[in-house]
Amino acid sequence: MIKASVIGANGYTGLELLGILAAHKGTVVEHAVSVSNAGAPITDMYPSLTAYKGRAFEPLRIERIARDCDVVFSCLPHASSADICREFFDAGVKIIDLSADFRYDDIALYEKTYKVSHPCPELLKNAVYGLPELYRKKIGCASIVGNPGCYTTCSIIPLYPLVKEGIIDDENIIIDAKSGVSGAGKKTELAYLFSEVNENFKAYSVTTHRHTSEIEQELSKAAGRGVALSFTPHLLPVNRGILSTIHLKLTGDYSQNDIFDLYGEYYKDEPFVLIDKDKLPSLNAVKYGNYISIGFVADKRLKRLIVVSCLDNLIKGASGQAVQNMNIMFGKDETEGLLAMPKHL
Amino acid sequence: MIKASVIGANGYTGLELLGILAAHKGTVVEHAVSVSNAGAPITDMYPSLTAYKGRAFEPLRIERIARDCDVVFSCLPHASSADICREFFDAGVKIIDLSADFRYDDIALYEKTYKVSHPCPELLKNAVYGLPELYRKKIGCASIVGNPGCYTTCSIIPLYPLVKEGIIDDENIIIDAKSGVSGAGKKTELAYLFSEVNENFKAYSVTTHRHTSEIEQELSKAAGRGVALSFTPHLLPVNRGILSTIHLKLTGDYSQNDIFDLYGEYYKDEPFVLIDKDKLPSLNAVKYGNYISIGFVADKRLKRLIVVSCLDNLIKGASGQAVQNMNIMFGKDETEGLLAMPKHL
Amino acid sequence: MIKASVIGANGYTGLELLGILAAHKGTVVEHAVSVSNAGAPITDMYPSLTAYKGRAFEPLRIERIARDCDVVFSCLPHASSADICREFFDAGVKIIDLSADFRYDDIALYEKTYKVSHPCPELLKNAVYGLPELYRKKIGCASIVGNPGCYTTCSIIPLYPLVKEGIIDDENIIIDAKSGVSGAGKKTELAYLFSEVNENFKAYSVTTHRHTSEIEQELSKAAGRGVALSFTPHLLPVNRGILSTIHLKLTGDYSQNDIFDLYGEYYKDEPFVLIDKDKLPSLNAVKYGNYISIGFVADKRLKRLIVVSCLDNLIKGASGQAVQNMNIMFGKDETEGLLAMPKHL
Amino acid sequence: MIKASVIGANGYTGLELLGILAAHKGTVVEHAVSVSNAGAPITDMYPSLTAYKGRAFEPLRIERIARDCDVVFSCLPHASSADICREFFDAGVKIIDLSADFRYDDIALYEKTYKVSHPCPELLKNAVYGLPELYRKKIGCASIVGNPGCYTTCSIIPLYPLVKEGIIDDENIIIDAKSGVSGAGKKTELAYLFSEVNENFKAYSVTTHRHTSEIEQELSKAAGRGVALSFTPHLLPVNRGILSTIHLKLTGDYSQNDIFDLYGEYYKDEPFVLIDKDKLPSLNAVKYGNYISIGFVADKRLKRLIVVSCLDNLIKGASGQAVQNMNIMFGKDETEGLLAMPKHL
Repeated sequence: MIKASVIGANGYTGLELLGILAAHKGTVVEHAVSVSNAGAPITDMYPSLTAYKGRAFEPLRIERIARDCDVVFSCLPHASSADICREFFDAGVKIIDLSADFRYDDIALYEKTYKVSHPCPELLKNAVYGLPELYRKKIGCASIVGNPGCYTTCSIIPLYPLVKEGIIDDENIIIDAKSGVSGAGKKTELAYLFSEVNENFKAYSVTTHRHTSEIEQELSKAAGRGVALSFTPHLLPVNRGILSTIHLKLTGDYSQNDIFDLYGEYYKDEPFVLIDKDKLPSLNAVKYGNYISIGFVADKRLKRLIVVSCLDNLIKGASGQAVQNMNIMFGKDETEGLLAMPKHL
Repeated sequence: MIKASVIGANGYTGLELLGILAAHKGTVVEHAVSVSNAGAPITDMYPSLTAYKGRAFEPLRIERIARDCDVVFSCLPHASSADICREFFDAGVKIIDLSADFRYDDIALYEKTYKVSHPCPELLKNAVYGLPELYRKKIGCASIVGNPGCYTTCSIIPLYPLVKEGIIDDENIIIDAKSGVSGAGKKTELAYLFSEVNENFKAYSVTTHRHTSEIEQELSKAAGRGVALSFTPHLLPVNRGILSTIHLKLTGDYSQNDIFDLYGEYYKDEPFVLIDKDKLPSLNAVKYGNYISIGFVADKRLKRLIVVSCLDNLIKGASGQAVQNMNIMFGKDETEGLLAMPKHL
Repeated sequence: MIKASVIGANGYTGLELLGILAAHKGTVVEHAVSVSNAGAPITDMYPSLTAYKGRAFEPLRIERIARDCDVVFSCLPHASSADICREFFDAGVKIIDLSADFRYDDIALYEKTYKVSHPCPELLKNAVYGLPELYRKKIGCASIVGNPGCYTTCSIIPLYPLVKEGIIDDENIIIDAKSGVSGAGKKTELAYLFSEVNENFKAYSVTTHRHTSEIEQELSKAAGRGVALSFTPHLLPVNRGILSTIHLKLTGDYSQNDIFDLYGEYYKDEPFVLIDKDKLPSLNAVKYGNYISIGFVADKRLKRLIVVSCLDNLIKGASGQAVQNMNIMFGKDETEGLLAMPKHL
Repeated sequence: MIKASVIGANGYTGLELLGILAAHKGTVVEHAVSVSNAGAPITDMYPSLTAYKGRAFEPLRIERIARDCDVVFSCLPHASSADICREFFDAGVKIIDLSADFRYDDIALYEKTYKVSHPCPELLKNAVYGLPELYRKKIGCASIVGNPGCYTTCSIIPLYPLVKEGIIDDENIIIDAKSGVSGAGKKTELAYLFSEVNENFKAYSVTTHRHTSEIEQELSKAAGRGVALSFTPHLLPVNRGILSTIHLKLTGDYSQNDIFDLYGEYYKDEPFVLIDKDKLPSLNAVKYGNYISIGFVADKRLKRLIVVSCLDNLIKGASGQAVQNMNIMFGKDETEGLLAMPKHL
């Protein structure tokens, strides 16, 4: 039995983790930590979390948690997360960090992107980027996993094989991404009020979104040289889901079949990557599930390729992927707790 | 030309007033006051308010506003509104107050309901309850109008004739009301975040909602004795609109025709009251318009009557009605600026 | 292993059954029947049903299904369902019928309500009304279960103890119910188009909704005399969920505690009935789960009681309850396959 | 007084026309034609159209309409529209056609795009493409105006100056467009049911959408050579609005100011084109108004330009633009009836 704790359990990714872990056969949640709600009965705030009846959110008692647990999921904001993670690391607890703090190879890129000093740069060498489809083996041995961003997972998985194989012009990658509102977490700001978001749609953080550098980091490694790309996120008036429309130039005369075969080579044994040959996915193919679904259209007229990828931002884009990483780190079946089917509606 | 100012112009009712007044032939908006956003160009914050291009929200300069204006619309919160209104009253400016401060005949009922001391009880004698369908004449002579609440307008108009004529048992009035989220204004609280409201529905303030006493005040006058009723509001995941389902017991053997005729007697000349004989209204009959639409089903089996009334909470439920009151106060055509048709979608 | 088939698998309740049964440890879905889509790969139409990869919707081959299966779930429309069910009954297959055909004790009431002749009245004596909270034992021995309607489940469970114990005046029961759009199934009618429903809200079938007689049937048995009640449904712009606000007159001076204790007596051991003492439930407490959540406010001022109940119309209101019935019929743990937690968002 | 009729008045663009024309000072709607609903009182079906109280949808009586009217708006489907328009043309009535039938210079391109034979190719020489910002003068003399598509208006206006001036590489134009559901009209198909669209998002008609050729036609004229571009539409779960994110490569070292100045040169006197220097527009800047709002970010890092344009698909994207064209054709103030401000919520 894996003994786990969730730090920052009262945010949307934390709550989702509580949900997934409750149905996970081999794990017990020892502590659900929320500093701001410590003491509050969980089901008073979230009646949906029926399995937590009788339990309360707890304060952050690091020693006790370290003593009780094999693994800690940190859902804290960047910079403050790493500080806490260091203490758990020193206590020998495995860490899956959902913030950006352990996602970067290059501390300078992190600091430039997030405009903060990294609280514990020395730990980065112990961290692995938690994208199982690329780094499964390393994750298996890692003591710290930097769980990828939601937009980045939805971008890197479809782009990696194309960049790696030189199928597309990596100087002209355009990602037009649309995310549901839970991606913003529980920020109580005017911009996220129902009346402001409902029946509205907009682009935001154009040319400046922080996930850009994370995607570029991974694609640069695939390309073997620096890749700079255009990433444009939008706010979609739905609760869950990211759909990315990726606009690409083909480097040769590749057909629909060629692309399908290529994806098959990379992902045919992946339990959570769904590749469609003739059909583009929509959010209702993935919401409430741990899958990423990928479709594409090879445009002969323009020698272009349009790839559509989508996932549930709280699951494959965050907490589901975190549990997938945990399964790998602890030698469990990678799909344990993650096979709940998406919900068409 | 009526010279008007809007105090609290940055809230949803204030913005709606700016919108309606811009299209009002006989009015000019002298000052759009928002203390928290003073100096901000209006169309920077609200590009939709195209007619205000080049203008900014202003600070609250009472003397100057009083000097420039014939009428002031106050969209401030209760208690703080009356304080400001007093100054305009002393300066001889007419006042249409959208808070609860001038809606009550009985100061004690106001203070019990709102749990505050009234800042200027002496002014109440100068105030008229701003429901044109009931108090048109008095409004015409008023210097202060207490603009009714959204739920109350949607309740009193359909109930008044029934109670007045003794058609229904006034000891068994049940109002089950559902309101869009703009009714909560711009409160940046967790409960009003998109992700919390969207795909959700709930009752709130059950047995305690403050509009109850306002409805009871008016129906008691209609009945000639104290009326106590059950009012249950719900939060609907839409931007605009209130729909109230009113459950009543008939005191006699009244038919669908009888009820229709009765409503006709009271409202057939009302420009903004729509009575349907055979059909129940839905929000898309009224949203974005100043109408209240009423339908009903006389239930022979149970000797009951179900009345459905609906309106746009920001227009007939607030700012449209305020302008209707202004038209009456200044001897204008009551419909001026208010005939924009509702939007089916 | 229970061998099950779903007839009408392509409707929303059929699809939900496929979803629930795929995660049910002791059951295998032998045939997913959709006459209109026979031959179509299931995941081509519904990629979310990942567990059905490689399988197709099948035609209705009654003999073969009867040979292969222990139980059949019929998600066909009323009247046509009973006709099919008879054939399975004759072949000795157990039946859980989600239509109205086996819900009524009195054939005349069924025929009056649904305005059709019942195709096989002789079978009614073999049918049990599938509300486990009331008829668990009988369901255990039944060969045909008439699975209750969504509105009716949401009404009967909260009302049964109150009526049975005479706590409320059963001549003044008012149910004001609000349902998400999936309750209408997949009807391709103008009224259910996105643009017509979104940002809209309305009452429908006022005084005429067919679930009224089903609720009255069960409450009349509880009261020991005929109960006639007022039921008013509304269409809510959400995918899933029913919330019913039930307005009642107390027959005595009952407190919040009294009501809580009474519900406890009836339901404290029920695995899927959640009773809240101080809090009213909202849809996000139940959607995507098999629970019914009940809260209430005893209104001292008016000697009234307001009960709010809610459930997911496709789960506890239809397919989840059907599986709960199957579990009982086959002597399984009643909660098997049904403990997936609701989703807060 | 312009005497106008609307053919196909029961569709979403037809209804929007009825709404706009009712508030248009210089126009009277003589006939609101809906073959399928002829005889039905308009406000029975659409209570929101309060100005049409007492009037009914009418059958298509061409002679009578031709006798009574100066102008006819055709909201019929492509191919069937042209057939009817010819009759009005022969009778000397001016025509504004909202279908695709009179939008193309090249009949072959129309026939290839729409996969039909054009019913009256000889009329094309009398038709003008109804985009006032490009063809105001010609529209003033036209007897037939082919009113542009919604996506095309939202694409051509922002792209025209950039292509014309060679600011961007016209071989790498990528339009990623997102439209509200009313763009699909009233099609009663499964794909447009509330439960299928709500909480969902998808791309559709990728590489095959018919508006592509219409955009290319106009941009090719601007470029002076054939322009082929990539157009990808998506279905957004909102009622109204299109937002297009246009991804472009700059041909030189252009700054934010340069682009702003260029747009100013082309559009500073345009009454319905809003250009923002530092801010990107969102749907709530334009919905319910006749404006197109354009913002942009010049991306120095990548030498790219991202343009965001948005409009209300039923107004500037269809019926509002049609009335703008009517104003021009009849020598009226171009803004008459079109200055209603957009609605922030």
